[in-house]
Amino acid sequence: MVAVETEAWSSSELVIAKQAFQAAYEREIAALVAEVRQRVEQVSQIEEIWILHDFLSARRHQMDGKYDDDLTALLFTFAGLVKEGWLRLEDLQGLSADKLSKIKALTRM
Amino acid sequence: MVAVETEAWSSSELVIAKQAFQAAYEREIAALVAEVRQRVEQVSQIEEIWILHDFLSARRHQMDGKYDDDLTALLFTFAGLVKEGWLRLEDLQGLSADKLSKIKALTRM
Repeated sequence: MVAVETEAWSSSELVIAKQAFQAAYEREIAALVAEVRQRVEQVSQIEEIWILHDFLSARRHQMDGKYDDDLTALLFTFAGLVKEGWLRLEDLQGLSADKLSKIKALTRM
Repeated sequence: MVAVETEAWSSSELVIAKQAFQAAYEREIAALVAEVRQRVEQVSQIEEIWILHDFLSARRHQMDGKYDDDLTALLFTFAGLVKEGWLRLEDLQGLSADKLSKIKALTRM
């Protein structure tokens, strides 16, 4: 078990974390917009517009939960985003070696 | 006040009503799909995808309420669809003269 509680974040680490967080969010939204554009082009049956709506509802709910910027959850959040490909470890350079190694360990779980 | 309660619908009228209902729904959905395609093309800011989602949620709720095929409400429903342009009175030809005149009267309210 990786200990991730009661992490102290320096102000420069918080800036890096905020930027990485925003970068991952923007990448994922850009991919979502591209997918919605493709899906809406393909709508031909009447009910498909509501399927698109259901899809957007589900993705919004999922992203609201995933982009949790609560500091106590941030290492888990970052590890999840790295695993999914929305964030690279390079985006997190400047965090303490300890935090980076914890994030790396979490991505392997 | 137009009396619209306890209407009797013949089986041929029910067929016409169902077809008119479906035609109006298809027209409105086609317009909605066109609008969603245009809106999604214009998404540039991150949060706009969620504005699109809110828009779809509102339109779905509105349409669920509007396309009420309860027979007791059908004259009101048709009158509303005619007023909004999704249905023409010609789509309702074959309904009794009494029903048609009630629908016309309701469109003027």
